[in-house]
This record gives sequence, structure tokens and C-alpha cells, in this order.
Amino acid sequence: MTSDQHNEVSTNMNNTIIKIGMIGFSLQNTWAIKTHYPAIQQLSSNFQISALYNESLDESFQTIRQLKLENATAFPSLESLILSSNIDMILIAIHDKNYDPLIAEIVSYIQQLATVPNHNPIKYIFLDWPLNCSIEQIEYLVQETAKLDIQTVTSLQGRKSPYVMRAKDLISEGSIGDINSIEIAGNGAWYGYERPIKSPSYLYDMSNGKDLVSNAFAHTIDVVQYITQSHFKQINSMIFNNIPKQELIDDNGNRLGEFVEKKAPDHLLFQGKLMKGNVPVSCSFKGGKPTKKFTKNLVIDIHGTRGDIKLEGDAGFIEMSNLVLYYSGMKVEDIPSDASNGNVKTPGIYDAGKEVMEFYHLRNYNALFGNIFRLYQSIIDIHLHQLNLKSQQKFAYQGFQKEGYPTLADGLILYRLINSVFKSNLLGSTLDVSNLQ
Amino acid sequence: MTSDQHNEVSTNMNNTIIKIGMIGFSLQNTWAIKTHYPAIQQLSSNFQISALYNESLDESFQTIRQLKLENATAFPSLESLILSSNIDMILIAIHDKNYDPLIAEIVSYIQQLATVPNHNPIKYIFLDWPLNCSIEQIEYLVQETAKLDIQTVTSLQGRKSPYVMRAKDLISEGSIGDINSIEIAGNGAWYGYERPIKSPSYLYDMSNGKDLVSNAFAHTIDVVQYITQSHFKQINSMIFNNIPKQELIDDNGNRLGEFVEKKAPDHLLFQGKLMKGNVPVSCSFKGGKPTKKFTKNLVIDIHGTRGDIKLEGDAGFIEMSNLVLYYSGMKVEDIPSDASNGNVKTPGIYDAGKEVMEFYHLRNYNALFGNIFRLYQSIIDIHLHQLNLKSQQKFAYQGFQKEGYPTLADGLILYRLINSVFKSNLLGSTLDVSNLQ
Repeated sequence: MTSDQHNEVSTNMNNTIIKIGMIGFSLQNTWAIKTHYPAIQQLSSNFQISALYNESLDESFQTIRQLKLENATAFPSLESLILSSNIDMILIAIHDKNYDPLIAEIVSYIQQLATVPNHNPIKYIFLDWPLNCSIEQIEYLVQETAKLDIQTVTSLQGRKSPYVMRAKDLISEGSIGDINSIEIAGNGAWYGYERPIKSPSYLYDMSNGKDLVSNAFAHTIDVVQYITQSHFKQINSMIFNNIPKQELIDDNGNRLGEFVEKKAPDHLLFQGKLMKGNVPVSCSFKGGKPTKKFTKNLVIDIHGTRGDIKLEGDAGFIEMSNLVLYYSGMKVEDIPSDASNGNVKTPGIYDAGKEVMEFYHLRNYNALFGNIFRLYQSIIDIHLHQLNLKSQQKFAYQGFQKEGYPTLADGLILYRLINSVFKSNLLGSTLDVSNLQ
Repeated sequence: MTSDQHNEVSTNMNNTIIKIGMIGFSLQNTWAIKTHYPAIQQLSSNFQISALYNESLDESFQTIRQLKLENATAFPSLESLILSSNIDMILIAIHDKNYDPLIAEIVSYIQQLATVPNHNPIKYIFLDWPLNCSIEQIEYLVQETAKLDIQTVTSLQGRKSPYVMRAKDLISEGSIGDINSIEIAGNGAWYGYERPIKSPSYLYDMSNGKDLVSNAFAHTIDVVQYITQSHFKQINSMIFNNIPKQELIDDNGNRLGEFVEKKAPDHLLFQGKLMKGNVPVSCSFKGGKPTKKFTKNLVIDIHGTRGDIKLEGDAGFIEMSNLVLYYSGMKVEDIPSDASNGNVKTPGIYDAGKEVMEFYHLRNYNALFGNIFRLYQSIIDIHLHQLNLKSQQKFAYQGFQKEGYPTLADGLILYRLINSVFKSNLLGSTLDVSNLQ
């Protein structure tokens, strides 16, 4: 590489725009409207909505018109979007749909595109929620994108929560010493006795990865693994459907006397051992409207040899709730060395006089949007960094790194854990899960 | 029965004295000195220490002298105590001893006593802690006492805690509706990184039922079953010994640089389903000095369809800790009937305007002593009640009744559950425990 070439790239860095082809993005897609859309708008020097595909072309036209998406073209088919739109990223963020047929189609069109001479290659596939399809389809997608040199992204956006990152930092700095236990209690309000008549039915359906286990719990346990930098080695679970019928309620919370069947679970008991430190993790995740009076709807207690961290939130959805972080402990630099023991810092040493406390809360943080926004930020960070280095290597997966973003390889590890949770319940066994990575 | 006979019994009621033969009761037995002894003293119109047996006769003499036990005789052997002391109750409350050999001896002497003409029969055997021996020995004792018409008593005294009884009342009155989940977190301070040099070694030994699982957890889970009036139908457990060496500390908490081996567990993860209502119960019990900054060392959260109960304590030993009870919910009498549904009171109905709260705490309650004291009170209540009715039937077991006291039949059910907890960990299985009763 000549120095000129290097300069050329550097100069262009801030002008890099990732052109996005949005699949299933319309005014009706409230999730994407509240999260992906404003994130892309706020990062408009690096991201642009360039193409739209919806089952109804009119819906795409209407969306472009109402949102004034001046750079976007509506395509009549998925095929035409992929083959002729000249986009860099495909985004699929449709919560009420199983992605299996979509993924099959997308892969086949991308393979077709690869045979077109001088084509602009698709660089990214962003799948909002990796559990919205079968695990086989995710495995297929991971395999095919690897062949085509396409970077995957997925929405384990809880990892981008400032509270989660702060907890991770405190732990990796040694500020609570060795972790010796973790207790989690969550309340996923959707799965209880009442069903808001307007609440989307996909929440109560087991095929779209939006049930209590595959959604609320999955996000939480991904974050716990991320914070502690450890996967599980052994798990056990019990899954409950104690509320087989839900009563419909209107917008004002009035009971309508009409009952609907619920097949999805309303409670999960989960316990396991982390690989790192053999740490016991206990978790109780319940559905039902928040009637918990003496505890928050989301509580993660992390106890260590030299301190404690508590994460609390008003809703049992760590990926989109604003949280509060409490820390108390003794920083690693304040540990006296043990002169009688070769100056080793022994884990049990604790000097209450050196104890510090921290309370961390961003009063106006909109976590629903903010965590997705920060995920987009990290995409552009890595993207520019790679351009700068002239390295076109894929960012394989985030793992437990602080930098980067979750990919489908991260999603797949989580998916396997969630499958093991269902399996443990079904078999009535404690399962070894040390080989899911 | 003539009315005279009846009157005679009634008149004698308050003069009934249960004469106790204490086995292993001495000034060194700090547990009995702090609990059984003052309880008996305060109930001196109904209980009396009449006989003592210790391995050293001098120890018995010294105890009688120093405590001024004017009605007590020191016996040189267990045999002589049982055969010639004319007692009503045998009390064994020795925490550092496995009861197996004692039980075998006691049973044989009682059988011998039964052959003596006109003997005063032993009416009670009070075994402080049913897990201080093998389950086979408890089964044998239950069987033999039944044959000999001897009433057993055991120290599941957590059931007598005023907080536990209040929680039980609130639940059985329907004040939290149907229970839909329970979360327990305990911290048993004895089993952690440090070992006070004076702490008794039996705490770290697996043979005396004083380990984290057989003691701190066992008391707690007995109370949870008692409060909810339900046994478990399915359980899973994971047992940890993550701290294989403890550092000795002196009375001032100074570290002595000397390490001792620990074989007993320092953490238990337990989860299960209650028979009644299929209620999910989650439990994390840890050892280690209390460094929990953001939660109490004992927390039991009980969530129901119409309210919540929280029990909190400073130490993870529910049977001897003073607690605080918090209640919030809607009383059953305030539930509106659903006219459209045959005036049925549906579980989901909740009117926040009718919500009441209760905070229950006895500032000066000495739970260590108090719960044992209340257990003695209930013995005399049932005893007098039976005399009054001229019914000499045994009080078979307490079960989930409010009245009465735990017997070895109750202890046996708990023992079987604890054995299942060890077995579940060993086998790596979720176990069906619905047949332990």
C-alpha cells in the first residue's frame, strides 16, 4: 500500500455511507419505526435508507412519502431489491414474522448477484433478532454469508446498554473481586393473566422467538454472559404455562370478559454454573402484570469477593429498559498485598475503610432507541476502522469484547443455549452446555 | 367418662409438669443454654429439668450447681437415666454430635423400661434437629416411638416464628390471591472464605446435618412449604464447593494466615415446582461473610395474583433470625364479584384503590430463643388439650396445621427432600419428589 492510497482512504472515512435496503419496513412496523429508523436518521452521514421492500408496493411508497425518505426507492420484489438496488446492507426487522422463508430467498438472490459482473456486493446482513427463525436457517445463513464475505449483525443490543457496559468494566477491572454468585429475577409483563387487545399476537406464539424464554430471558442471559465474560457449563430449567387463558383488556386496562388461549410459557426457572469460576447463577423469570411491590421488575444481583453490583429496571426486558446500576466494593488498586504470602493479593482481603460506592443512572436515557443507536454506532466504528486499515476482513463475532457488535455467530451461541433451556425442561435433566460455542 | 373425672382433669390442667431428662445438656452446650434452657425456665409451671446425663458425671453436677437446677438429678449413664429417673420427656440437643448411636441406645432402654411393671412411661422424645443422624435411624425412631406410644417433637422451629405464622395466615386468608412465584436468596455466613477460629468444626462436617444444605437451606425450605401449605412435586439442585480452603480468623476478624480444608458446600442452587398451584420456586443459598450491600442476607419474595409478601432477615438462618414482613395486596373481602361470570371472583381482578399494606416487625424479638420458646408453648398447649379431652392419642404430625408442633414425621419428610436435593445434584437430574410424604 502506498502512502497516497492510505491517505485517499483516510480522507474518505467520514464520507462513508452504508446504503440500507429495508425489508418489511413500513409505518406499521412500530419496532423499526421507534428504533432502527431514528438511529439511521441520527447517523445520516454514515447510513442511508436506499431501498424498501414490502409485500405491498403501496405500503413502501406511502412510507417513503410520509417519512420523506428522499434517497429511497421502493422495489416490487425482494429479488429486484437485491439484484438492482446497489445497497450495502440488508436489514430485516419484522417482529411478527418467522424469517425462515425470507432467509432462503435472500440467500439465493445474493448468490445470484455474486454472478453479475462488476456488481456492488452486499456487505452486511442485519437480522433483528436471531431467534426469529429456525436454528437451522441461522446456521445456513452464517455459513453462506461466510462464503460470500458478508458481515452479519444481530440485535443483542442489551450488550450496548451503558449500564451493561459499566457493569462489565467494573467486573473486568476487578472491582468486585471474583464473582461468587448471581441472582436474577425478571418480570416480563406480556405473558400474564391479561392480554391487551392491541398487543401483537406474535408475543404469544412459539414460532417467532418472542416468547418469555426466547426473548426476555434470552436477552438477559446473553447480557449476563457478556458482563461476566463467561458462557455456561451446566444448566437446568423448568418452564411453566400456569396461565393457559388470558383475559382481553382494552387500552384503559378494562377487562373485557373475553378469554383467549395462551400456549406460550409464563414462567421460567433457570439455574446454572458459569465456566469461569464455576459461578452459581439463579434466575426466575415470570410473566404477568407487574404486581411486585417490594422489588423491581428486573433485578440482577452480582456478588463478588470484594463487592456487589446490582442492576435494576422497571421492566423485565434488559435490552430496552432504562436501568440503574449500584456498585459497592473495594477497587483492586486498594487491596493491600499480603507480605507474608509473597505479596499476593488474596481474594478474601477486604478493608471496609477503602470501600467505594457508585450509583449510575442516566435519567433521560431512552433505552429502547438508545441501545439500537449505539449498536449502529459500533457498526460504523468497525467499518471505518477496517477501511482505514485496508483490511476487508469480516468482524467474525463480538464474543465478550467491548468493541464491536453482536453478529449471527454470537446469536447462534445464544440460540443453542435457549434450545438447551427448552431441552432441559423437556428431559428433566441438568445439561452440559460447555460445547455450544 | 363421668363429669367428676372430667372436672378432676380440668382442675389439674395448669399443674401439669412435663419432667425432662436432658441428654448432653451442660454449660458447654451453648445452643441448649441459649434456647431450650431459658424456654423451660420461663415455662416452669409446665416443664422441669429433672434429670441430666453427660458423658462426664462431673459436668452434669457442675451444670446442676451453676444453674441451680434444684429438681434435677445427675445420672451416670443413659441407661440409668431412662430406667430410673421417672421422666416424661427425653431431650437431645447436641449440635456437634451425630445422634445415631444415641438413638439406638435410647430405643433399647425405653423398650426395656416398657417391661418394668408399673413404670412411668416416657411420653416425649424431643430431638433437636432431625438431620443430625442418618435417615434410617430417624425412620427407626419414628417406627419404634409409634409402637411405644411416645410422642416425638423436633426443632423445625422456623414454623413458630411470628413472621412465618403471619405470612402463612395472610396466604391462607387469600390476601395475596393465588401464589404465582417464590424467590429465595440466603446467605449462610458460616460457609465462606473465612473461618472464625472458635467456630465449631461440626459446621464444616457433612455428617451432623449442619452443612449449608442440611441446615440453613433445610430450615428455609421447610418454612416455605409450611407457609404455602404445599410440598414440592419436582426439584433440581446444584451444589458447589467453590471455597475448598478457609482462612482462620481470630475473634476480632483478623486473618491468621492459616488455612483449613473445607469439604462442605458453600453454595446451593435449588429450583422446583410446588404441588399446589404448580408454583415455581427459585432459591440461591450462598456461604461467605455477608458482603451483600444491596440486599438482605435472607430474602423470601412471594408473589401472588393479588399481592406480595416479602420476608427479610439479616442472616440466612430463618429459624433463628429476627425478620421483617412486608405485605401489599388486596384482601379477599374487597374483591368485586364478576356479575357477568356467575359472581365468580376471578384471580386477575385487582383494584389498586383497595390495596392495603402491612409492615410487621417486633423490634426486640429474640428469634434464637423465641422460636424455640414458642415451640415449647405449643407442646404444652397440645398436651393440656389432650388431657382435657381424655384423649391420649398421639399428635401424629403437624403437617401444615397452624396449631401443634413439628414431629419427627415432619422431620422425616424434610429429610427426604434434603436427600433428594443431594441426589439431584449427584445425578444431574430434575427429580419427582411428589412421593416423599
